Amino acid sequence: MPALTTYRTHVQANWVDYNGHLRDAFYLLIFSYATDALMEVLGMETRNRDGTGHSLFTLECHINYLHEVKLDAAVEVRTHLIGHDRKRLHVFHSLHVAGADEVLAGSEQMLLNVDLTGPRSAVFAEHVTQKLAEIVDTQKDLERPQWLGRVIGLPGK
Amino acid sequence: MPALTTYRTHVQANWVDYNGHLRDAFYLLIFSYATDALMEVLGMETRNRDGTGHSLFTLECHINYLHEVKLDAAVEVRTHLIGHDRKRLHVFHSLHVAGADEVLAGSEQMLLNVDLTGPRSAVFAEHVTQKLAEIVDTQKDLERPQWLGRVIGLPGK
Repeated sequence: MPALTTYRTHVQANWVDYNGHLRDAFYLLIFSYATDALMEVLGMETRNRDGTGHSLFTLECHINYLHEVKLDAAVEVRTHLIGHDRKRLHVFHSLHVAGADEVLAGSEQMLLNVDLTGPRSAVFAEHVTQKLAEIVDTQKDLERPQWLGRVIGLPGK
Repeated sequence: MPALTTYRTHVQANWVDYNGHLRDAFYLLIFSYATDALMEVLGMETRNRDGTGHSLFTLECHINYLHEVKLDAAVEVRTHLIGHDRKRLHVFHSLHVAGADEVLAGSEQMLLNVDLTGPRSAVFAEHVTQKLAEIVDTQKDLERPQWLGRVIGLPGK
């Protein structure tokens, strides 16, 4: 498969500003729902139906806003697993008009596997580790997103 | 003044996940409202009541999630102007329990001044440039936030 399409939605009225443009925080809400969907793909049920009591917490997040997105636009999120260790997952979500390649916004994120009974960080369950390896393998030929490793700064400073 | 307190709120029921914790995107919504408030401080009325037709768009944003925040928590955002040029503003928003110093989350952001009639990037209006200089001067002794210039990556990779 190319990138993994994790979430599809229409831009909702309460997500746009008075100009009818998607507000910065709601790009991240769409990516957040994509992370929830990724957990399902990984066999991590978001309400602990898999019995591990594990969930993914966002440790750190970077967003590049490339294009405005308007009310009612049909959009989708594609997710690229960049890497992982025993407890952390490094992902890149990109937002697109449904079916289009152009990237409207990109978000690099570091997610932590957390045992909610602590809450404390925890090693991924075996079935999740297997699924991670499977997806990384299917994505091994995907081009590395150009928005990874960004540092914010004024031009020329 | 120390940092500029730009926004105060209680964590609302529709901002938390099923565990009662503030969802990642809603930390950014709180910071987004703080940016709206900063525009007012700068004399940029968010509905163009100042007649310039200018608004601040978020170009790029980085968030570090340091502590969980629970439903109903009274929180506030403090804003540090890191730098600016003729069209861009580099800011750091920090989230705190109201009145407390501990940083719950921090967000470095690059904002662009936009003429909404394009929309196209525009030089800050003179009254905004003056206000920016004023705030930068009052904040010149503030310690540089440790979360600036962050790059996301797996430990040891």
